[in-house]
Amino acid sequence: MSDLSHLNSVLDRIDADFDNSLERLFALLRIKSISSEAAYAGECRKAANHLARDLGTIGFSAEVRPTAGHPAVVGKVGDRTSGNGGARPHVLFYGHYDVQPVDPEALWHRPPFEPVVTDHADGRKIIVARGAEDDKGQVMTFIEACRAWKSVTGALPLDITMLIEGEEEVGSKNFVPFLEANKDEFKCDYALVCDTGMWDPNTPAITTSLRGLVYDEVKITAANRDLHSGMFGGGAQNPIRVLTKILGALFDDNNHITIPGFYDGVKDLPPDILAQWKKLNVTPESFLKPIGLSIPAGETDRMLIEQLSSRPTCDVNGIVGGYIGEGSKTVIPSHASAKVSFRLVEGQDPARIRKAFRDFVAARVPKDCSVEFGDHSLAPAIALDWNMKPLAAARKALTEEWGKEALLIGSGASIPIVADFKKTLGLDSLLVGFGLDDDNIHSPNEKYDLKSFHKGIRSWARILAALAELPRT
Amino acid sequence: MSDLSHLNSVLDRIDADFDNSLERLFALLRIKSISSEAAYAGECRKAANHLARDLGTIGFSAEVRPTAGHPAVVGKVGDRTSGNGGARPHVLFYGHYDVQPVDPEALWHRPPFEPVVTDHADGRKIIVARGAEDDKGQVMTFIEACRAWKSVTGALPLDITMLIEGEEEVGSKNFVPFLEANKDEFKCDYALVCDTGMWDPNTPAITTSLRGLVYDEVKITAANRDLHSGMFGGGAQNPIRVLTKILGALFDDNNHITIPGFYDGVKDLPPDILAQWKKLNVTPESFLKPIGLSIPAGETDRMLIEQLSSRPTCDVNGIVGGYIGEGSKTVIPSHASAKVSFRLVEGQDPARIRKAFRDFVAARVPKDCSVEFGDHSLAPAIALDWNMKPLAAARKALTEEWGKEALLIGSGASIPIVADFKKTLGLDSLLVGFGLDDDNIHSPNEKYDLKSFHKGIRSWARILAALAELPRT
Repeated sequence: MSDLSHLNSVLDRIDADFDNSLERLFALLRIKSISSEAAYAGECRKAANHLARDLGTIGFSAEVRPTAGHPAVVGKVGDRTSGNGGARPHVLFYGHYDVQPVDPEALWHRPPFEPVVTDHADGRKIIVARGAEDDKGQVMTFIEACRAWKSVTGALPLDITMLIEGEEEVGSKNFVPFLEANKDEFKCDYALVCDTGMWDPNTPAITTSLRGLVYDEVKITAANRDLHSGMFGGGAQNPIRVLTKILGALFDDNNHITIPGFYDGVKDLPPDILAQWKKLNVTPESFLKPIGLSIPAGETDRMLIEQLSSRPTCDVNGIVGGYIGEGSKTVIPSHASAKVSFRLVEGQDPARIRKAFRDFVAARVPKDCSVEFGDHSLAPAIALDWNMKPLAAARKALTEEWGKEALLIGSGASIPIVADFKKTLGLDSLLVGFGLDDDNIHSPNEKYDLKSFHKGIRSWARILAALAELPRT
Repeated sequence: MSDLSHLNSVLDRIDADFDNSLERLFALLRIKSISSEAAYAGECRKAANHLARDLGTIGFSAEVRPTAGHPAVVGKVGDRTSGNGGARPHVLFYGHYDVQPVDPEALWHRPPFEPVVTDHADGRKIIVARGAEDDKGQVMTFIEACRAWKSVTGALPLDITMLIEGEEEVGSKNFVPFLEANKDEFKCDYALVCDTGMWDPNTPAITTSLRGLVYDEVKITAANRDLHSGMFGGGAQNPIRVLTKILGALFDDNNHITIPGFYDGVKDLPPDILAQWKKLNVTPESFLKPIGLSIPAGETDRMLIEQLSSRPTCDVNGIVGGYIGEGSKTVIPSHASAKVSFRLVEGQDPARIRKAFRDFVAARVPKDCSVEFGDHSLAPAIALDWNMKPLAAARKALTEEWGKEALLIGSGASIPIVADFKKTLGLDSLLVGFGLDDDNIHSPNEKYDLKSFHKGIRSWARILAALAELPRT
């Protein structure tokens, strides 16, 4: 009996067991696995243990593996682990259990680690919690699909190696060396990554290009201590003045980034893609109005969808200096700092961009002040070449589940691990996810549509069946 | 027997009682009377009660008086309170018991409200605590001088009204209406204010001009929530970009402030004053090197002492937006804000400067973003005309105590209450203080030289005797 013949039973099983799926997601969401803050290291370990235990219940041989940072969860199921050879396709599934910090916590309507199902303003049912989408909810769509297959057929339809890391939100610095050190163990046919979005709440999508990311920290130091602006103001340099002057010079009046060489290697879109994108009709009204804006902030000679998907960008993600409490304090601080990131596109070399940015900053720092840089991320853009069978199979499965043609889209976000899979393991990645633009990931009140979670599980159940039918590549 | 004949006994008494004076200062310094933070309102009240009680022990009729904010301490001594008429001079002494916040607390070498006497790197003995100088230490120089007079002669040599407020560090917003509401009660011959500095550790000074202060808060709001820079970066406006572009445009390449009309009404120094200031030889080496800097940050066509004393300035005292924790977060924040202050000189109208600044900002805010302003301070510069006898008498007394000619200096800082005394009570103010440039006021590790405290008490004892000898103005 082919796997496809079991599919309807598996889908029925998913529907019948959905309340329990939700409970299992909630249990994972209650763990405060914030990877960027040292105080939560124990919670990260707890999340890893929790996932390994859960994978064990559905037939994976699973363990928590140490890295130089937060641990990774590795789970294996299939012929290879039972010694049967390797006749079936073998996929690597990747996700992450770590989540973003929750600040500003005051803006959450409920405690971020106490998940609930509630109603969105427009009537959609949503799951609210930090990590509800990114990436615990997405990871659980895959695990729950596996659970349903195991429950109905006693096995999974193909060989799967699970890799769930704990440092995606902090640049996977320790996970990549772990991958490198164990590369023979993790070689598969291709990777499945569930950390991307749909086109809209009813239209599934497969992401075929990703922007890269350079993320730097800049700290300007002026005087050797905080000064009183009455006594020193006018004569002593203010590091906030230096920093704002530098950051204020990053854009010209047409919103082009002014760093010399920044656009080197960036290609214009082919005319046919440009025409296709025009038809998608991404307008300020449709895209910006829901977030309270109306004027595209990118290069004035580009369409909004280009600004968001195919053009490189720069954002200051955080800035702090001096007195930030209530009231006033007439201080000239000793130092001020900012977190600055760049989204890169194909053709841009991350190391060159970082150097160009640092040169741009250093050239503007007065001689009696100093600048320090901190490196948070350095990942190239990815363009996936998807004339391969798994893409077509997955697209067909998604289209069947959602009743709408699955789109192939470019994402403005970065998933640096995709480049590492290619470089380290030689694997292409298939990027399927069920996030939405209004999921508030990295923000207060992160949510995941209940429909995304439910139909996400069903989508993976279908995709697994479809991939199992393919000959090995 | 004239008051002057008692002076030596009073000075001896001050020396003999100095350890107790220090203990009394420490008791006041232990009270965490931070006026800008609501959590410390009880501590402000405690400081006021403490001072009223202490003034009572040296013959003042003293009470804690409510205002719409933190209370004020009012103490009275002399003929008027005993019904003897008004033959003696009557002075108003002004100081404040409130202190600045302590952040960043991690930079304090000891807890800020546990005062100690310790050694400065260059061997000077110093008192370290928040408020050690500003203004608790300075206020206590005057109170201890009064105590010594009372102890030796059984009375004070002239009539004194004490006014010690609790909101100087937050702009005296509720104290000024209190003054206005009770103006008949507080009319005196002139005011003594102890909140300024010396020329250097061995050279006393009387301050005869003060810069004004406009202190504004600017908050830029873009999207209605925090956004993920991967999904929205390039298309959605970033309020930190808007804010840094505005603040970065405040200075031109010669460090002139670019706000239209900012310098309107500002006069050049008279040639004789300019010549005198040149001789003071304030150099980058002498003034900036101790704080780790070397390049004057003010207008390039002005001497450093002009930049610090006679020219208007602008400083960003605080800035915050987006993610400021450890690590990285790819967020585009909803809003960003800054605290911006201007030191004003004679000829500048604070209300016009504030309007010009707000116009400058508003003109640079994109149409789909919004800006809110908050007002922390609005005070004009003060130039005191001191051809009056109290000035000469005080200068002579200071010169005798310190063995060096007391200088008449301009201060870069603002003491807005001086303008209010003139406007509301019709009083001129005599500004005598014992602070030093390296006192770290408004910074971690605030200190007051032990010598400033000791000789400050002795200086006031001499000044009181000298002022008592003057005919009433």
